[in-house]
Amino acid sequence: MKVCKFGGSSVADAKQIKKILNIINNDATKKYIVVSAPGKRHNKDVKVTDLLIGLVEAVTYRKDYQELIAQILERFLQIERELNIRHSLIETFRTQLNDYIMRYQDQPERLTDALKSCGEDFNAQLIASYNNEQGIMTTYLSPGDIGLIVSDEPSNAIVLEESYEKIKNNLAHAEGKVIIPGFFGVNKNGDINTFSRGGSDITGAIIASSLSSDVYENFTDVSGIFSANPNIVDHPASIIQLTYEEMRELSYAGFSVFHDEALLPVYRSQIPVNIKNTNDPDHPGTLITNTRQSTGVVGVSCDTGFASINMKKYLMNREIGFTRRLLSILEDMNISYEHMPSGIDDISIILRAHQLEGKEAKLLEKIEHELKVDALSIEKNIAILMVVGLGMKTLVGTANKATEAFKAHNINLKMINQGSSEISMMFGIEEKDANQAVLAAYEAYFTH
Amino acid sequence: MKVCKFGGSSVADAKQIKKILNIINNDATKKYIVVSAPGKRHNKDVKVTDLLIGLVEAVTYRKDYQELIAQILERFLQIERELNIRHSLIETFRTQLNDYIMRYQDQPERLTDALKSCGEDFNAQLIASYNNEQGIMTTYLSPGDIGLIVSDEPSNAIVLEESYEKIKNNLAHAEGKVIIPGFFGVNKNGDINTFSRGGSDITGAIIASSLSSDVYENFTDVSGIFSANPNIVDHPASIIQLTYEEMRELSYAGFSVFHDEALLPVYRSQIPVNIKNTNDPDHPGTLITNTRQSTGVVGVSCDTGFASINMKKYLMNREIGFTRRLLSILEDMNISYEHMPSGIDDISIILRAHQLEGKEAKLLEKIEHELKVDALSIEKNIAILMVVGLGMKTLVGTANKATEAFKAHNINLKMINQGSSEISMMFGIEEKDANQAVLAAYEAYFTH
Repeated sequence: MKVCKFGGSSVADAKQIKKILNIINNDATKKYIVVSAPGKRHNKDVKVTDLLIGLVEAVTYRKDYQELIAQILERFLQIERELNIRHSLIETFRTQLNDYIMRYQDQPERLTDALKSCGEDFNAQLIASYNNEQGIMTTYLSPGDIGLIVSDEPSNAIVLEESYEKIKNNLAHAEGKVIIPGFFGVNKNGDINTFSRGGSDITGAIIASSLSSDVYENFTDVSGIFSANPNIVDHPASIIQLTYEEMRELSYAGFSVFHDEALLPVYRSQIPVNIKNTNDPDHPGTLITNTRQSTGVVGVSCDTGFASINMKKYLMNREIGFTRRLLSILEDMNISYEHMPSGIDDISIILRAHQLEGKEAKLLEKIEHELKVDALSIEKNIAILMVVGLGMKTLVGTANKATEAFKAHNINLKMINQGSSEISMMFGIEEKDANQAVLAAYEAYFTH
Repeated sequence: MKVCKFGGSSVADAKQIKKILNIINNDATKKYIVVSAPGKRHNKDVKVTDLLIGLVEAVTYRKDYQELIAQILERFLQIERELNIRHSLIETFRTQLNDYIMRYQDQPERLTDALKSCGEDFNAQLIASYNNEQGIMTTYLSPGDIGLIVSDEPSNAIVLEESYEKIKNNLAHAEGKVIIPGFFGVNKNGDINTFSRGGSDITGAIIASSLSSDVYENFTDVSGIFSANPNIVDHPASIIQLTYEEMRELSYAGFSVFHDEALLPVYRSQIPVNIKNTNDPDHPGTLITNTRQSTGVVGVSCDTGFASINMKKYLMNREIGFTRRLLSILEDMNISYEHMPSGIDDISIILRAHQLEGKEAKLLEKIEHELKVDALSIEKNIAILMVVGLGMKTLVGTANKATEAFKAHNINLKMINQGSSEISMMFGIEEKDANQAVLAAYEAYFTH
């Protein structure tokens, strides 16, 4: 039995919806289907989720929002028309939107999550209804119906442990196909709370884990995961297989094909994830598993927006508790760090730069005052490039391939971190060099 | 005005003592002289300090120690004879040794420090007395006389702040040459406490700092500091000038020409240190200063005996406070760490392996239990190689030189840490590769 999830572009219009139903109706093992909200149909299109976020703003700032509701419903109406649906759901949807607005107009967070959930929710209802009209027994079940209970953290909910058992029991006897909207759950009182953006991947992973699915098929609009960003590298190789851990290292530095938080449930229950292409379903795509046979580099990723806080203090390494006190300052200010390379008398904190907004001056002052460092500076516009692959720690010359490539392209290395992870090397570079560095590293590891 | 310190081999016998007196008597600016205990005269010789440590043991275990006292005094007697000293001090020395033994026989720590101090103390008295007999006004002053007050930490004393002012006042009006024994000070009650081994460098640095010496001349038996260990690299280049910070990074990984703790006083008062050779006093030696004009690699050092505790935990980088809790475990067990390279879901603690003795099992258990890591292992026999030099952070290809050299010699890199320090790169390798790696790195940076 398989759980399948279809992303926004896979359910963006009638043509795409027919494709996904073709995929699931022709395979009896594809039983539980998680769908996203309709995504972009073309480059300049607007995602339904973004239309809904616009609606939230209009309601919150007491602007006229009828036009926005019309625009949202028009998207679904168009799908219904093209699918020749007999029993339209549009008026049900309109009532639902207005109900949420009435109920939550003075609770902006509840309003946001309730309205944001409508993209997935309406799409799931519509697709289930259409598949039934085609004579295939299909049930729409909402997250509340199946017992997907989440923490009460609007827009950033986390699944509660009890959900796994509930979902297992609630879905055990479902007949035919089951269509479930992704992206949200309900708290213990039944209020809607969404996951972070792109969270339909998480819904699918939770259901796959609850049901011990043989595989979790995650359909997008690319044939698996590329070994480098295709906007930078021309036709990069596809990754056939990689491990959860390799996936996590790659997504850390910018690979966004599969939602990072969706890995945990499948990792824990060791369910393979297959990233596939709705538009080319016969392509094997990329398989994410617990282990793989071969070793070697699988991918090169790079993310920008990092900053480095550099401290210097003579005899720092004799000062017991220095680092612990430094970490306490960060924790007190609710700033999380990524890496902390240290020399004898130096230490750097590498972090996502956006965390410093509005806190930079105070943070520097606290470090200066509490740790009495000799020198303190912040460097911004740092990119982190990761070379990821099993067996990295035992390969002579793996690091050299990258440093040689960077040298040949005149890219200055601000930081090298190798050896902490057995499956990755990390390089700090200037943001302006990021694309060039990805090209250079890709060339070094994949074309030589 | 200069403060000069002469190491053990520079004052090992009459011939050497004549050399140092020749050096100081011919230069009116060389006024304050710190001397070590007599060192080795040849490869198989025993240092006087080691004879004294043997005496401590004999007394402590109630063995017959008269033979040891005779052996120690014989060293000084031989010097007196060869110098044709008129007024022998040997009986004074004998009384001193027996006094200490009587006074401290039931206080092993006091006994140890008092007896250990005698090597320097007797040598200073003897040299001052001889120089006076030669018609040069010379005063012997003990650390107690000059106000070198230290913490009451036997064998590991630290100078107290008040000493600087005291020494300055006490030495202000000294006439002629002043000879001071190195290696020890007195606590507030007047009890002798020694610095850590090799601590005469520290005494000289404290006096140079107290007196705002123009330069602190530190005489040894090599013409300055080599850019690599001469036991590994054949005739390595001498370093002409380097900064305090570069010196510290080099001594961290095994360069022991100048005592690490001696750097702090001179660093604070910005007094240049000149490492010179008693046997070749015209050689300019190595100058250690606050800054230097040029940039580039000055040295390659390598130290063994490190261990790495490797931890892996899925989603580690989301777990707020993980590292802080890890550091608290180490602090509670009184274990200090050197580096802490981290990946996304991995972290390693690099530390001096001897610290794990008797604590390893408990430490692992605590980490396992309190941090619930997914994987935990200890790797031993790790060497750390440092490539040190100003301007490292901005040089394209600096790292590549080393990685290329290691690859060419088939040396596997367990860890690379570049970027935390602006003046060094750190490489983790297996101990068995240490010498080969030093050779390779030296060749890469100094001969190409």
